[in-house]
Amino acid sequence: MNGAKSLVETLLANGIDTCFANPGTSEMHFVAALDQTPGMRCVLGLQENVVTGMADGYWRMARRPASTLLHCGPGLANGFANLHNARRAQSGIVNIVGDHATYHRPYDPPLAADTESLARSVSAWVRTTDQARHVGRDAAACVQAARTSPGQIATLILPSNVSWDEGGIVAADLPPPAVPSVDAAAVDQAARLLRDRAKVLLLLAGDAVTVEGQGLAWDIAQASGARLMVDYVNGTIARGSGRVPLERMPYSTDLALEALAPFEHIMLVGAKAPVAFFAYPGKPSAQYASTTQIHVLSRPEQDAVAALRALAGQLGAKRAPIPSPGERPSIASGAPTPERLAQTVAALLPENAIVVDESVSFGRGFYRHTHAAAPSDWLHLTGGAIGAGLPMATGAAIAAGGRRRVLTLQADGSAMYTLQALWTQARENLPCTTVLLSNRKYNILIGEYKAVGAAPGPTAMQMLDLGNPDLDWVKLATGMGVEAARAETMEQCAELMASSFRREGPFLVELVV
Amino acid sequence: MNGAKSLVETLLANGIDTCFANPGTSEMHFVAALDQTPGMRCVLGLQENVVTGMADGYWRMARRPASTLLHCGPGLANGFANLHNARRAQSGIVNIVGDHATYHRPYDPPLAADTESLARSVSAWVRTTDQARHVGRDAAACVQAARTSPGQIATLILPSNVSWDEGGIVAADLPPPAVPSVDAAAVDQAARLLRDRAKVLLLLAGDAVTVEGQGLAWDIAQASGARLMVDYVNGTIARGSGRVPLERMPYSTDLALEALAPFEHIMLVGAKAPVAFFAYPGKPSAQYASTTQIHVLSRPEQDAVAALRALAGQLGAKRAPIPSPGERPSIASGAPTPERLAQTVAALLPENAIVVDESVSFGRGFYRHTHAAAPSDWLHLTGGAIGAGLPMATGAAIAAGGRRRVLTLQADGSAMYTLQALWTQARENLPCTTVLLSNRKYNILIGEYKAVGAAPGPTAMQMLDLGNPDLDWVKLATGMGVEAARAETMEQCAELMASSFRREGPFLVELVV
Repeated sequence: MNGAKSLVETLLANGIDTCFANPGTSEMHFVAALDQTPGMRCVLGLQENVVTGMADGYWRMARRPASTLLHCGPGLANGFANLHNARRAQSGIVNIVGDHATYHRPYDPPLAADTESLARSVSAWVRTTDQARHVGRDAAACVQAARTSPGQIATLILPSNVSWDEGGIVAADLPPPAVPSVDAAAVDQAARLLRDRAKVLLLLAGDAVTVEGQGLAWDIAQASGARLMVDYVNGTIARGSGRVPLERMPYSTDLALEALAPFEHIMLVGAKAPVAFFAYPGKPSAQYASTTQIHVLSRPEQDAVAALRALAGQLGAKRAPIPSPGERPSIASGAPTPERLAQTVAALLPENAIVVDESVSFGRGFYRHTHAAAPSDWLHLTGGAIGAGLPMATGAAIAAGGRRRVLTLQADGSAMYTLQALWTQARENLPCTTVLLSNRKYNILIGEYKAVGAAPGPTAMQMLDLGNPDLDWVKLATGMGVEAARAETMEQCAELMASSFRREGPFLVELVV
Repeated sequence: MNGAKSLVETLLANGIDTCFANPGTSEMHFVAALDQTPGMRCVLGLQENVVTGMADGYWRMARRPASTLLHCGPGLANGFANLHNARRAQSGIVNIVGDHATYHRPYDPPLAADTESLARSVSAWVRTTDQARHVGRDAAACVQAARTSPGQIATLILPSNVSWDEGGIVAADLPPPAVPSVDAAAVDQAARLLRDRAKVLLLLAGDAVTVEGQGLAWDIAQASGARLMVDYVNGTIARGSGRVPLERMPYSTDLALEALAPFEHIMLVGAKAPVAFFAYPGKPSAQYASTTQIHVLSRPEQDAVAALRALAGQLGAKRAPIPSPGERPSIASGAPTPERLAQTVAALLPENAIVVDESVSFGRGFYRHTHAAAPSDWLHLTGGAIGAGLPMATGAAIAAGGRRRVLTLQADGSAMYTLQALWTQARENLPCTTVLLSNRKYNILIGEYKAVGAAPGPTAMQMLDLGNPDLDWVKLATGMGVEAARAETMEQCAELMASSFRREGPFLVELVV
């Protein structure tokens, strides 16, 4: 068998059954092998950042990697931004990049680029396969690397001749390396601190924000008086009624400093020490006071749930009832505001939905109003590279086998980076509802500009304003096969959202805000 | 003054008056400085590959660099593919990337990436400015690098604190390094070869395909019996009546080998030795026989026109009349075919138009049928990273001050990578006509797949077919403010094209092929 065939069979043997693809000439033997080997679901994205964003969304829901298929260095570069977001979400991705034949590369053909160097700057693992008989071996190692806790970008570069040459050998499943065990000393220290009733914040991320992790953290908080908070952005977080109504770290440094001021100790559970998204003149980079002590209960690659369980055990914490989030809000009416949208989402969200949040500045306060929504998983923009929402929603819907509704709360400026994802939603007939927040400006940047000291003048607005002409999202969506309608009031938005939740396929609501 | 202000004033002092931008938070001080300093035209692109593609198209027509403004590593990555194409076109670009404050970076905030490493893999020159008083100096050096013959990608990385800190110093214009002089020995050798009446092909690219270069090459050909050919892709090539009806190198290796078989010698004039875009099993990488001798009259960075003039002088070549391309074809009728479209373009193209050709496989034979078109400049996809056409057209229109009609011959699959460029065409009301070749498949790949040995099955077609659902380009274009209409016959296409040429602003014809 040729290298390409050994690649597909090795991927299947290693539990990879979904391939998000945007192939090119150098990947034709891989495409042919996919064609000849049953078992792999192939999903086309019309631009590579859609492909990588789908793979990220897939991992966040499936908790196992999908593969990508990208074309040479420039194809990898096109998909880089959502690989970056996936890296920050600690998603596992088997990132396959076809490239020039080993003997063709020295001729520096037009599409030649430094694929390996591009791959290294976003991947935890990179290998270029040198001959057909190593394709299977390398593919299995790539899957293993992607499955290494907590999840990694693993990039396999496949020169076209190793795909078409004969001599491919299928490699068996390689188990992922064991998750690094709980650090007993860290648990002891945490228990001492909590027994002392110090002012402690448990900052949760990763597995600590799963249903199980949250529940244990809540038990610990009830037993010790510690407070809980979650990262501003989370790869996947369980929310809604029956889950702990957790507060998010604020985005702004001023608000974050204020929120963290009461605590003498911050204990990280799968989280990193809170740092500002961006530096500002005269403001600190760290979002906590210099007197605050940072402790690590569990590093991102460790088993946070086990660490929380050990800590709860040491403290003798009992199972504490999850507090009620109160009544589910009713549908809001009138002109759209962030609060009203959050309320309406809480009112209408179906049971077990997936919420993809790339609402950027509009959605900073969504948590407060959505604790009483139906139980749901929320996926955030983790790496700050906008254009993640629509692709992630598409991949998440595929991971859920089309059985869970996906609601994307999507800022318009960000949506424009990867709007091609809507086409894949239509082609795969995915249960994706997009509420497109059409404010026709880069509103976050207008805020940031004002922070520089002045109101933007005409030249600045030329770069911050998305109007003139207004984007017509109903046309854009229907142009890609996704039904769509415009809403100017919350009543209209609610009606369109509710009816979209009864559909099988995708729908887009352009909410003029 | 702060660093940002010194940046803008240095750019202006160094002849940079156009900035293609997609800014973010870390660039707000640059945006503010642009706002406060008159003289810079700022053009927003809604995705970074639009921004870099516009800068490429701008250079190709203006022959002087514009600047970009990109946001951090992921923003640079988003614009990488069209920087790659620009690098292959030898375009000069002052590529400005804002980044995290120097002291913030060690905290590894969410958007942090290895910006320098990304920049290095596509730039000839990279510098990260370390403090405000160096911004002006570094910006001037960046412009100088971009203007280094034949044109280079020069990337300046600006941490946000060097923009906002006081102490900026405006730097005066740095002249670009002298163009490397003509190699007298190469001219002597070329003259000897041509006097021997050997079977010589002059392969032209870069400045050798300007009106002046072509004319000299034609004189040499007439005096010596040498034949002329141009690269398959050219950054900018002067074509149409009054210009030499030059043949292109074929794309396919088989056809290229056949076309080059008659020649014992290939003399490169600004061109590289012809190499296949991709390797294929059993086919050579070089597109010429191993017995063919390769000579270099002028390297890409040298002055090809001066070399041709020196050679013409040594040969005593007289000014030879440019051969007539024959009658201008009439508008074609019936179902669209490549030949009919080329004919119709030749019939209708306005004087002094700019043609941007990203027709991919559909347009491989366009040259043959368009020699008799009105004089025009043609811009090709040089680096093979699809998604260049619409951005390049936008930038070229801006470089031409809106005074020349731009016709983009645009494949649909490629258009989807950077369709956001249409919005910029609408906002800037640019004289851009797009003929969108809607074949609803990656036709080049279906051809490549068949070359692998079989007809694509359903899994392969899932990755090669753009139908299901069909993209509606009229909706997509009008959704971004560009008027559009669909044509299914050549008569309809001709009518829409002709009427678009009488407009001020942009128009898109979806030609169903």
